[in-house]
Amino acid sequence: MKWQDIGDLGCPIARTLSVVGDRWTVLILRNAFMRMRRFDEFQASLDIPKHILSVRLKKLVEAEVLKRVPYQDSPTRYEYRLTEQGKQLHPLILLMADWGNKWMNDGHGPLMSFTHTDCGQPFHPVITCSECGEPVLPQKIGMGPLPDMKTVTNAVKTR
Amino acid sequence: MKWQDIGDLGCPIARTLSVVGDRWTVLILRNAFMRMRRFDEFQASLDIPKHILSVRLKKLVEAEVLKRVPYQDSPTRYEYRLTEQGKQLHPLILLMADWGNKWMNDGHGPLMSFTHTDCGQPFHPVITCSECGEPVLPQKIGMGPLPDMKTVTNAVKTR
Repeated sequence: MKWQDIGDLGCPIARTLSVVGDRWTVLILRNAFMRMRRFDEFQASLDIPKHILSVRLKKLVEAEVLKRVPYQDSPTRYEYRLTEQGKQLHPLILLMADWGNKWMNDGHGPLMSFTHTDCGQPFHPVITCSECGEPVLPQKIGMGPLPDMKTVTNAVKTR
Repeated sequence: MKWQDIGDLGCPIARTLSVVGDRWTVLILRNAFMRMRRFDEFQASLDIPKHILSVRLKKLVEAEVLKRVPYQDSPTRYEYRLTEQGKQLHPLILLMADWGNKWMNDGHGPLMSFTHTDCGQPFHPVITCSECGEPVLPQKIGMGPLPDMKTVTNAVKTR
């Protein structure tokens, strides 16, 4: 079994990794969230080899994270837009930025600043509970049925 | 330049990816958050080839996400524990689980359930602002100086 097949398996984390467990893919998504849409823009901005970009975009379309939308006739040209499913990956990218800002800054302070425009303050993302609104600490999470982790990943060794 | 060198570059997302932009690594972290600590446990649970596990654990220790702690004398044996820096990756894993639960369930409903033990309810993680406490919508985030994305990733094509 290959990594691309891991989406068939039972752990939601492994399934998410089957879509975003690739560094180029996450950088493409980062740029998509900065409103980048066209193949040539991604290619120039990331300086990514065209065939790698092409494969990654195709997989993101297959995973319904991006959709191809025509923006020009004769010849028809397409751009890539985030789907609703794709937009919901935004918190993941935001948390990666926040963690990198805090822990990967070589002691020079945050690399990038984020402001919450509703309140106007520089902020950090805080995970809260959809039900009671309070912050969720890792030790305060109960988990339902766990997937069989061995089944989830056992055949990956053959990739 | 190789992916492992991308941590030298300016984008906090790319720097985070230099640590967790690998699927095995994220599955190791998932298991660490389930209180797994020992090489043999990781190896048996993930059915990961030993040399791959060894390299991934070494990188996580170098990145100060895990620490090696002796748990036995003569011969000395070590286990791997999450550092504070590593523990702060928990929200990232939680969001991956939540996204996979919602979008990768083949229409059969969530694969795994999470309960917030403070309030006792099944919940979804919601990103809120550390300053005003309100939910943070993607379109309500202002970004400070952006890194030069081309510099961040340009040499990756040579990997």
